[in-house]
Amino acid sequence: MTVGVCYFPEHWPHERWERDIEQMAEAGIEYVRMAEFSWSRIEPESGEIDLSWLDEAVSLISDHGMEAVLCTPTATPPKWLIDQHPSILQEEPDGTPRHYGSRRHYCFNSPAYREETRRIVSTMADHFADNPHVAGWQTDNEYGCHETIRCWCDDCATAFREWLRERYGDIESLNEAWGTTFWSQHLRSFDEVDPPRHTAAEHHPSRLLDYYRFSADSAVDYNAIHADLLREADDDWFIAHNFMGDFDSCDAFRFADDLDLFTWDSYPTGFAQDRRPAAASPNELRAGDPDQVGMNHDLYRGAKQQPFWVMEQQPGDVNWPPYAPQPGEGAMRLWAHHAVAHGADAVLYFRWRRCREGQEQYHAGLRKQDGSPDRGYHDADQAATELAELDLDTVDADVALLHEYDNLWATNIQPHAPDWEYWTHMRQYYAALRARSVQADVVHPDRDLSGYDAIVTPALHLVDDALAATLEGAVEDGTELLLTVRSGTKDRANKLPGVPAPGPLTDLVGATVDQHESVPERLDRQVTYDGESYEFRTFAEWLDTDDATTVGSYVGGVGDGRAAITEHEFGAGHVAYCGVWPEADLADAVVTDLLDRADVGYSERLPTGVRAAQRDGYTWVMNFTSDPVSVALPEDARLVVGDDTVDAFGATVYEGEAADLSVDEG
Amino acid sequence: MTVGVCYFPEHWPHERWERDIEQMAEAGIEYVRMAEFSWSRIEPESGEIDLSWLDEAVSLISDHGMEAVLCTPTATPPKWLIDQHPSILQEEPDGTPRHYGSRRHYCFNSPAYREETRRIVSTMADHFADNPHVAGWQTDNEYGCHETIRCWCDDCATAFREWLRERYGDIESLNEAWGTTFWSQHLRSFDEVDPPRHTAAEHHPSRLLDYYRFSADSAVDYNAIHADLLREADDDWFIAHNFMGDFDSCDAFRFADDLDLFTWDSYPTGFAQDRRPAAASPNELRAGDPDQVGMNHDLYRGAKQQPFWVMEQQPGDVNWPPYAPQPGEGAMRLWAHHAVAHGADAVLYFRWRRCREGQEQYHAGLRKQDGSPDRGYHDADQAATELAELDLDTVDADVALLHEYDNLWATNIQPHAPDWEYWTHMRQYYAALRARSVQADVVHPDRDLSGYDAIVTPALHLVDDALAATLEGAVEDGTELLLTVRSGTKDRANKLPGVPAPGPLTDLVGATVDQHESVPERLDRQVTYDGESYEFRTFAEWLDTDDATTVGSYVGGVGDGRAAITEHEFGAGHVAYCGVWPEADLADAVVTDLLDRADVGYSERLPTGVRAAQRDGYTWVMNFTSDPVSVALPEDARLVVGDDTVDAFGATVYEGEAADLSVDEG
Amino acid sequence: MTVGVCYFPEHWPHERWERDIEQMAEAGIEYVRMAEFSWSRIEPESGEIDLSWLDEAVSLISDHGMEAVLCTPTATPPKWLIDQHPSILQEEPDGTPRHYGSRRHYCFNSPAYREETRRIVSTMADHFADNPHVAGWQTDNEYGCHETIRCWCDDCATAFREWLRERYGDIESLNEAWGTTFWSQHLRSFDEVDPPRHTAAEHHPSRLLDYYRFSADSAVDYNAIHADLLREADDDWFIAHNFMGDFDSCDAFRFADDLDLFTWDSYPTGFAQDRRPAAASPNELRAGDPDQVGMNHDLYRGAKQQPFWVMEQQPGDVNWPPYAPQPGEGAMRLWAHHAVAHGADAVLYFRWRRCREGQEQYHAGLRKQDGSPDRGYHDADQAATELAELDLDTVDADVALLHEYDNLWATNIQPHAPDWEYWTHMRQYYAALRARSVQADVVHPDRDLSGYDAIVTPALHLVDDALAATLEGAVEDGTELLLTVRSGTKDRANKLPGVPAPGPLTDLVGATVDQHESVPERLDRQVTYDGESYEFRTFAEWLDTDDATTVGSYVGGVGDGRAAITEHEFGAGHVAYCGVWPEADLADAVVTDLLDRADVGYSERLPTGVRAAQRDGYTWVMNFTSDPVSVALPEDARLVVGDDTVDAFGATVYEGEAADLSVDEG
Repeated sequence: MTVGVCYFPEHWPHERWERDIEQMAEAGIEYVRMAEFSWSRIEPESGEIDLSWLDEAVSLISDHGMEAVLCTPTATPPKWLIDQHPSILQEEPDGTPRHYGSRRHYCFNSPAYREETRRIVSTMADHFADNPHVAGWQTDNEYGCHETIRCWCDDCATAFREWLRERYGDIESLNEAWGTTFWSQHLRSFDEVDPPRHTAAEHHPSRLLDYYRFSADSAVDYNAIHADLLREADDDWFIAHNFMGDFDSCDAFRFADDLDLFTWDSYPTGFAQDRRPAAASPNELRAGDPDQVGMNHDLYRGAKQQPFWVMEQQPGDVNWPPYAPQPGEGAMRLWAHHAVAHGADAVLYFRWRRCREGQEQYHAGLRKQDGSPDRGYHDADQAATELAELDLDTVDADVALLHEYDNLWATNIQPHAPDWEYWTHMRQYYAALRARSVQADVVHPDRDLSGYDAIVTPALHLVDDALAATLEGAVEDGTELLLTVRSGTKDRANKLPGVPAPGPLTDLVGATVDQHESVPERLDRQVTYDGESYEFRTFAEWLDTDDATTVGSYVGGVGDGRAAITEHEFGAGHVAYCGVWPEADLADAVVTDLLDRADVGYSERLPTGVRAAQRDGYTWVMNFTSDPVSVALPEDARLVVGDDTVDAFGATVYEGEAADLSVDEG
Repeated sequence: MTVGVCYFPEHWPHERWERDIEQMAEAGIEYVRMAEFSWSRIEPESGEIDLSWLDEAVSLISDHGMEAVLCTPTATPPKWLIDQHPSILQEEPDGTPRHYGSRRHYCFNSPAYREETRRIVSTMADHFADNPHVAGWQTDNEYGCHETIRCWCDDCATAFREWLRERYGDIESLNEAWGTTFWSQHLRSFDEVDPPRHTAAEHHPSRLLDYYRFSADSAVDYNAIHADLLREADDDWFIAHNFMGDFDSCDAFRFADDLDLFTWDSYPTGFAQDRRPAAASPNELRAGDPDQVGMNHDLYRGAKQQPFWVMEQQPGDVNWPPYAPQPGEGAMRLWAHHAVAHGADAVLYFRWRRCREGQEQYHAGLRKQDGSPDRGYHDADQAATELAELDLDTVDADVALLHEYDNLWATNIQPHAPDWEYWTHMRQYYAALRARSVQADVVHPDRDLSGYDAIVTPALHLVDDALAATLEGAVEDGTELLLTVRSGTKDRANKLPGVPAPGPLTDLVGATVDQHESVPERLDRQVTYDGESYEFRTFAEWLDTDDATTVGSYVGGVGDGRAAITEHEFGAGHVAYCGVWPEADLADAVVTDLLDRADVGYSERLPTGVRAAQRDGYTWVMNFTSDPVSVALPEDARLVVGDDTVDAFGATVYEGEAADLSVDEG
Repeated sequence: MTVGVCYFPEHWPHERWERDIEQMAEAGIEYVRMAEFSWSRIEPESGEIDLSWLDEAVSLISDHGMEAVLCTPTATPPKWLIDQHPSILQEEPDGTPRHYGSRRHYCFNSPAYREETRRIVSTMADHFADNPHVAGWQTDNEYGCHETIRCWCDDCATAFREWLRERYGDIESLNEAWGTTFWSQHLRSFDEVDPPRHTAAEHHPSRLLDYYRFSADSAVDYNAIHADLLREADDDWFIAHNFMGDFDSCDAFRFADDLDLFTWDSYPTGFAQDRRPAAASPNELRAGDPDQVGMNHDLYRGAKQQPFWVMEQQPGDVNWPPYAPQPGEGAMRLWAHHAVAHGADAVLYFRWRRCREGQEQYHAGLRKQDGSPDRGYHDADQAATELAELDLDTVDADVALLHEYDNLWATNIQPHAPDWEYWTHMRQYYAALRARSVQADVVHPDRDLSGYDAIVTPALHLVDDALAATLEGAVEDGTELLLTVRSGTKDRANKLPGVPAPGPLTDLVGATVDQHESVPERLDRQVTYDGESYEFRTFAEWLDTDDATTVGSYVGGVGDGRAAITEHEFGAGHVAYCGVWPEADLADAVVTDLLDRADVGYSERLPTGVRAAQRDGYTWVMNFTSDPVSVALPEDARLVVGDDTVDAFGATVYEGEAADLSVDEG
């Protein structure tokens, strides 16, 4: 397994490059990513291409035994290009342009920008074709960062109409699919459809969902321009893109055909503050939430069901979260181990050296601005040494979590409660699995699910008959299924079906949703399950059982005594339905019962912030807390890194099963 | 008294209609409202009118012994119409259009839309003229929903100038009335007046108040187009509009001349969360605040001083508040009783069946999306049965609360404290009356007030000599008057008069306001009244008494010892002035003293969430809490519905006086 | 020392003027400011000038032995002028105009408005030239009020390009200074620079800083038009401007060459609520925070290092803060004493009489709207009497606090934590000095610093070699220096230097910043200093000492044991570096150690809300709390006003040293 780094030679004096690159090699670095924001360096004037500096950097990298990963520089078109084609700029729902002056100031659907993109990408691709020191390419940079997947400009209006035309063929099919009788929203032609700009009240949820799909597809189409030109020039290169964590608007799965490798940018202490800064615990502020980071690892591994890369790994303190606490001592090493344990083949730290200019001066690098080693450098060096020994196959998971961005979008369009968060709800189940040291794949529902012993479907909201049939087939064949609140509520167009939830899943569940409600904390939010009492969060469905058995019921409130959780024998398997958003204890109870039925081994419940992960026969025990913990290793465990005391923000690696360990906090 | 329902035949297959309508009749429903968003169904292409489907629906309704209420469909102009006349769209203060895609996307002052409105309304009016099965019409739908009373477009600019020209005649009169010397705001002609668009600092309060009045008048003028055409076609129809609760920008009173019937849309659990979601108690989340709902009932009853309708009654959980808790068991029946007790002659549930498409899928109906009965259906059925027996005259109230929207607007324009809320302040007094089972009319100050024993004036802010004389006359003749904080502060143009508050009311009060202040919770907010100590809220005026007697004084703070509450004998009556925003206990003390002086009977103080209301000799005891309560009925009470234990979310009705009952929470 | 008032004769009937002016004279008033919003009164129609009314007012004032201060009326251009030149309006970053309808609706860089300004100012200047009753002029009014220093219109774009051209000469110098390689921000010509309009992500910090500088300079240039024309007409007049408190965007220091006199507008209870309303204590809500007000006094005194004026002094309750509490009894007198003690030569109350019209009706005057005396009148009268006796030289301070707006802007552009507040951080040190009765000058770093015994540099963020050399020179010569967190972090272009912080100050400090972090309250925020344990706030730097001695260290957290505060002997002086944002106790400890080293005398630590200030041999003891305090006066003190009990909201004045007193709260 490999460590790399992101480097911007263009930010530093030419005479410094060799020393920088030498020091990278000394630290055990194998990959150097470059050039993702360098358009104005590559083409300072329209049509005047200069790639000699990049040639030289690649050559120096190769001289020191490393390989380059290059990027298409399209995330930051130069000012002269914007002035040539002002229509390239994105627009807000109120028509305000997103001006030049930061980054990502272009619309995916701008014909002018697509043309410029073809020009610069093919120029670079042709130039570096057959260069043996370029291992692969990253297309653009972080599609959708700063909320830029969606744009409301006139080019998007045109493209959206075309997208709908292709999807629906004739306008009456669209009217039928969306249901446009409501509020006189009937359309006579595709030309009548606009982007969902500023309105007095909320937009039609079906129109919005299609706009979100269209926007995600626009990024995919735009990316394909890069991928096709690069592949055409040299099909030995890998083509990758660096996605983001807990990301809402960009559908990673849709890129799977065009990319050879999924990568993402992991900033654990930033993510911990991202949406609910006040909720981040002291340990999370110092090292991140391992389940938040881990679920993203497993998502990008799941996107092609193969090893992934961390293309940008947090190197120390960072500039963009509300606060910039220093990571815990050793955390930068821990994150590399964590990534590899979850299936990463390479971890590239961002960036080599703190930048002296521009928007990210408060973002650490492995080296300080004066070139001296910073905190992350030592961690990266140690991680490189420890990981270099390991050559691992991908992660093998018994459990699948089904995830589809359309469900995220549909539930965000109609959240039904101010505190609905798709990712947080999903993470409740994910965390229950991880606290039991169970590996999970985060996969799209259309994947082959036959290899899994158990499947969990957090808020599988939009369900059609085909998906219901797939799940029925799996359960009939013995897969254990756990369906959750908000599943089967809508059809693919974001319309209610003619029957109550869970709609096409009703046979499978053996119960229907009589009522749903969302309730704030001061209302009753309690259920019993298996004789124990548990709190739940915000969402509750009252179930009417048909063939299913009630295994959990509401206590108190208007729904007192109603069924909340059911189980249903179905063929060789069972289907549990959890009609509430569980807090951690209930999630653990429901998930361990699922694992028992599925005969999937699991560990004792690990403490918060301590996690184990297994890959190819090796198990990592990782401590995201500021206190050391003692691990009771399996008897046959062979220690590879560390020992049975895992330091604060440390990691131990052994050959052996994760399910067999236990951890003592005391 | 009657129950009805809102129905959208256009949302359902034609073959389903008969069964739906049959089931309505079975539930005891008498009125069916239809067509309020159906323009694109009625006129799918410009000029192609199809009303046959609505004819058929009306006919089926009549076949089952019910009557139709039809709506003009102007709240949702179709896309083709907007594309023909894009100027129809409203604009925000910053110039952003409110685009097509939700509803209410038209400007009241658009000449193009007024023309289109005339065309569609006269088409429908002529078509249904003399149809004996159409009982009446609702014009448009919820004027001002989604903050759409006010618009800042060029059509509004033109109309505002014309409105001012008519109001002031010459520009110097306007300059004089507003006071435009301040900050060089002198105007040379009406053409120099614009809508109050985005500015660096706040607008002139007199200009804003006139813009608010103009905007409210624009809706009235627009509504008159509907009313006139409908009345012209058939003057047997009633003309109604469905107003909203706790509504800020639309002045219901100004519609009185054009409407035969006031109706409003009552969503108790939604309102409870509307402005201060965190303040809603568990019981209010389950059944609403009876005083919030009740005050709206009494306002719309007061608008014409005759029975009103609830045109939309919440049927179960609803989509638009922050949370969507299930209402308490029986709450949907309770609300119908509550409305009737406060003077409703009909309560129409919204809507018959949960809609499968568009923006309101998370809004319950009486029936589920599959057509089966939902929770509200059973409640509505029971309410219909219980209420059908009653044929009642309107409510007779001894007490008037004076309300004028101009006061709401003026105090909102200059709130003088972040937590000023006109409706909440007014409700403090209203709740004190209702907790004592006293009926109150909410009426405009220009109404004939001679019939009332007592008058309360919450924040009667804008007062001229004529109003002062009216109130003086009433008190001289023996009416008991309670004036409150912020009364008499400004003239009709929202300017300070040349004398201190209460301005023209000074003789009546026998005291003046020496100082006012608004203070946050951490400053002293205490008064003594009648030997007892009470907390108050935010607003305090220090009074200088002339002829009046000090009955309440400040304790602590800069105003320590200053007069806070005064009483003044005036002719045959008295005037109390309450110079603070009272909390509930002080409001009760001040109000019961008023009732004693006025010789108005009242009950023991009812517990929170339990209320009684009297109409035409009948008294309702209504329990908006989750625990049953015992009622000590008057000796001569004759039970009509229920008994002396009122269930959680239940209601009891007896013949007898409200003032004679008492309630035991235990 | 003198008291004055702001008067708007144009708001009142002509027949009232004489009585108003007579009453002013009776109250001991000596200056009357007029005309700052009167353009539409002076020029009701384009080109029709009428100054007769103002002549008459000046004449009446002079008849009563007072002098007039006149204002150029440019803060409120009339509507006819805006209609002639709509381009005058400012624009928001999203392009929305700031329309006519409030005030300050003009762009400093509008050529049309500069022309109109020249016309009206020269008209007034010529008219009043040689009028002996006009003491001086205020230019415009409160530059930058309502966030109007910065504008994003096309006139600003043109002017910014010109400003950059002058500053940088050629575009490559700008590219080099800013560092535009980052994110492809390289510019080929000045014409490619726009104002920093709405973008997807944050702007380049160097571009923003220059835009902030340019915007501040635009106001300076605009003001010079006034100053030059006025001075040209009559060079006996003083030229002043009324600045604002805790002000972020307008750089007062840059006006020093054009103004003869600095004045500012002091609203203590408003400021106390300004940024963190919930943090204001009850006493601060009643009388303001003496250190917040005092630091502004000392800043505007420091701007020319000569006495200043309070051009607007709060007269009672005011309209613009969230709440409008009544000031404490006597507070209006206290504020006048406070201002004089800090170096004011005149205090003008705003305004004579509460205005009956427009935006400020809820703003008290010295007289009520009916002309009768209001609370402030009595206080002003008393202050006038007490202060008239005193004829004082300016304040003599031993300590300098260095302040440069560029540091405020740079740290606000990259705050690095949500709770960073430049002024609040600076005030922590200022308050520590004031609590020890030590006078301080707030001065620009380029001032002659040789006269100070001690210098404190709160967040001296942008440092170049010249400044470092100045400070080195001062310390070598024996000045005691206290440098603080965030100092020396950036170069003048807002770029990181090639070495760690404190950059050019490293020799002086004898230590470098190894790491910085910003941490929320729930992380460890503790240091030891001199054996004691202290809390700090948000910002922490871990120091590597070279020659310096560690005197404070972190306790707990990732930085446990690292150096937080250092001392370094340097020539004849010492340099302390405080690497945290101290809370009050630590600030006191660090500051008293500095004073000891500098041999500056200081008092016992005064209680919160009680402050002493010394000017020209007199000491004021001022009580900003609601409880009286006892003062142990120095033995040789001669009482001038009051005695050794200082009333709630009262002041005592004696001849003698501030450093020798102590105060007993009990």
